[in-house]
Amino acid sequence: MSDGPTTPATDIVLAEWAREIQPSALQKMLLASSRPNILSLALGLPAAELFPAEDYTRALAQVLATDTRALQYGPPFTPLKKHIVALMAERGVKCEEDQIFLTAGAQQGMNLLVRLLLEPGGTVIMEELTYTGFQQVLEPYRPNILTVPTDTETGIDVSAVESLLMKGARPALIYCVTHGHNPLGSCISASKRARLVELAERYGVPIIEDDPYGFLSYEETAEPPMRAFDSQWVLYVGTFSKIMAPALRVGWIIAPQSLMHCLSIIKEASDIDMSTLNQRAISAYIEAGHLEAHLARLRREYKLRRDTMLKALREHFPAEASWCKPSCGVFIWAELNAELKTDELLERALIEEQVAFIPGEAFCAGEGGKESASRSMRLNFSHCSTALIEEGIARLARVLKAALSSTASSSSSAPRSSL
Amino acid sequence: MSDGPTTPATDIVLAEWAREIQPSALQKMLLASSRPNILSLALGLPAAELFPAEDYTRALAQVLATDTRALQYGPPFTPLKKHIVALMAERGVKCEEDQIFLTAGAQQGMNLLVRLLLEPGGTVIMEELTYTGFQQVLEPYRPNILTVPTDTETGIDVSAVESLLMKGARPALIYCVTHGHNPLGSCISASKRARLVELAERYGVPIIEDDPYGFLSYEETAEPPMRAFDSQWVLYVGTFSKIMAPALRVGWIIAPQSLMHCLSIIKEASDIDMSTLNQRAISAYIEAGHLEAHLARLRREYKLRRDTMLKALREHFPAEASWCKPSCGVFIWAELNAELKTDELLERALIEEQVAFIPGEAFCAGEGGKESASRSMRLNFSHCSTALIEEGIARLARVLKAALSSTASSSSSAPRSSL
Repeated sequence: MSDGPTTPATDIVLAEWAREIQPSALQKMLLASSRPNILSLALGLPAAELFPAEDYTRALAQVLATDTRALQYGPPFTPLKKHIVALMAERGVKCEEDQIFLTAGAQQGMNLLVRLLLEPGGTVIMEELTYTGFQQVLEPYRPNILTVPTDTETGIDVSAVESLLMKGARPALIYCVTHGHNPLGSCISASKRARLVELAERYGVPIIEDDPYGFLSYEETAEPPMRAFDSQWVLYVGTFSKIMAPALRVGWIIAPQSLMHCLSIIKEASDIDMSTLNQRAISAYIEAGHLEAHLARLRREYKLRRDTMLKALREHFPAEASWCKPSCGVFIWAELNAELKTDELLERALIEEQVAFIPGEAFCAGEGGKESASRSMRLNFSHCSTALIEEGIARLARVLKAALSSTASSSSSAPRSSL
Repeated sequence: MSDGPTTPATDIVLAEWAREIQPSALQKMLLASSRPNILSLALGLPAAELFPAEDYTRALAQVLATDTRALQYGPPFTPLKKHIVALMAERGVKCEEDQIFLTAGAQQGMNLLVRLLLEPGGTVIMEELTYTGFQQVLEPYRPNILTVPTDTETGIDVSAVESLLMKGARPALIYCVTHGHNPLGSCISASKRARLVELAERYGVPIIEDDPYGFLSYEETAEPPMRAFDSQWVLYVGTFSKIMAPALRVGWIIAPQSLMHCLSIIKEASDIDMSTLNQRAISAYIEAGHLEAHLARLRREYKLRRDTMLKALREHFPAEASWCKPSCGVFIWAELNAELKTDELLERALIEEQVAFIPGEAFCAGEGGKESASRSMRLNFSHCSTALIEEGIARLARVLKAALSSTASSSSSAPRSSL
């Protein structure tokens, strides 16, 4: 049976899809960019120095001292749902406690919804450039993925969605990040949001609205998520990871009450659907009135970091690069109008300047949009201080200029045969 | 399109398997037995008054005050793996840190392993009576389940497993609870353990060894789990839920190092594979030396509760009932040698005496063993105080005797046609 020395140490037979899985780009980057000498603009990490550690410690201590059920098995913690209803109301979303399903973060939220909606081999509509974590959620289902283009300013191409639906596509779901798109940093424009919701209703296709960044809005008037306009077809996924802390692993789904029972069964099979200590502690933290001031501080500080990165890009980046100003979220997407692959650029950046970003191609959900994505990079502005952001962009600009000049000289010395 | 008033409020089309899912027996019991007036011997809950709340609060506060990465995204917390290696060594298991995979509890551990090993429609061997949570894990795969009988004292019928394998069955996995079987409370005998491991090796079939209760052993010499005898084919699942607290959601898998990468990818897609605050706090709690004394206290207290329940059963239960003395875990399985369905008995118990247990049939994985299971009940002795255990068994005995006498009188007044 053995094929010789290349046979793995274990002979356990894995499920077919597991035999083919590859490390995600984010995992590779997590490794490379987590080396201590690297200045990383790669991952979507919140600022560690802004975590509400002291207030959260007090909330935990209070819960553990006063609530004997805090460490026990028990149903999901209802008072937290009440706080989420209030939080969502600030975003213009009207929902009820019995439409809130508590999860272990947004990633689990997406996982539960996909398991609920998608048959193996079923169809999904998503953008050409999409959060890689959602692509990972889909993998075991081996779905038929229909991609549509994305505008870096106004978001998903709704006409392309409509065209697919008109031609008869009946996907199990459409996946969207309405605000602070990952990786583009864009928001779906108001008119596109309205049209997309209308399409979902007309064709009976649910939208998974993934909203990790919607609370991090840097404009005076924040736009509401799609869930504000439809309570039936828009399945909203929220999380405390970006507005409190990722290591708490608490998020939520907003969905029709009729789906709660199924979600509960799927979650029970996944990791036991119960109240975690953090559900109670987050609730106590909000109850104590800390979240509003904390959110205001995060928005103020991240806005400053965004503006610092935009200024540094203008100052240091070459004319071949362009980018948009995100009104929300933690990412800036920069595209190079030059024959330069950003995955190759990353290697040079790590070696020559110890600076990291994520190459655009990592987010491609198919072949569409690959050419421009391969010339693009995702830059995060939430994690580093303003000083490090300036330094990081300056370093990256040096690598970029060096690469551009060597590309120019190599292509002049050895011109390609097909141009 | 509408079928009239029976159409659900939402028209979202769910995946086929989700349309058919039913609430688990445990969920129903959680609801019924969580009513405040019910004395519940139903669920496998740890004793809330024994949770290490104070020491754990200190561990949390210390971590949050000193480790800036405690709330951030980051790789699974390696120092906790070192502690798990030491814990397992006490059980006779030799393993390395790079064979430990941290999970959000044992339920997630099983979920990840099943996703790794099982194709949709694949084959699984398990006992006729099995932890319902594992049956839920399997459901989406619509597997071919081959069941084997279980002896209430010595565990899984290994000859039946061998017979299936000899006849050509090649399951993706065999599922076992070696110590403190749920629901039987039994341990697999030493000779059976050795034979089962030998079969796994000979036929190349991995065993998922689910071990939530193995650390709760009430004998002088605790037997090692199967993982002690094989590091290749036995995939071990452990958890802090029963030895510290369930609401922490931290457990572990021990598996060959070659599987770690795949597990990491599956977990990343499930809920992001990262270090949670509780991974660090549990590690700090163990580092401070608390776990050993805490475990000793749990074993002492649970042994007392087990013995109290056994004494109460002897004193109050009728001659038609029989049970075994578990050396490990939190359950006693009582079988009635009478024509009395325990699911019907439960209804009477809840109404007449406000006492709850889980009817044996809830644990059936197929048709095999159903007859005796339907005359059996699972009784938990970890959750209630000794006073409540005595009271609960006395109440249950009253219901039982009343039911037996009404069965006797009804069958004498209206004898069945087929006896």
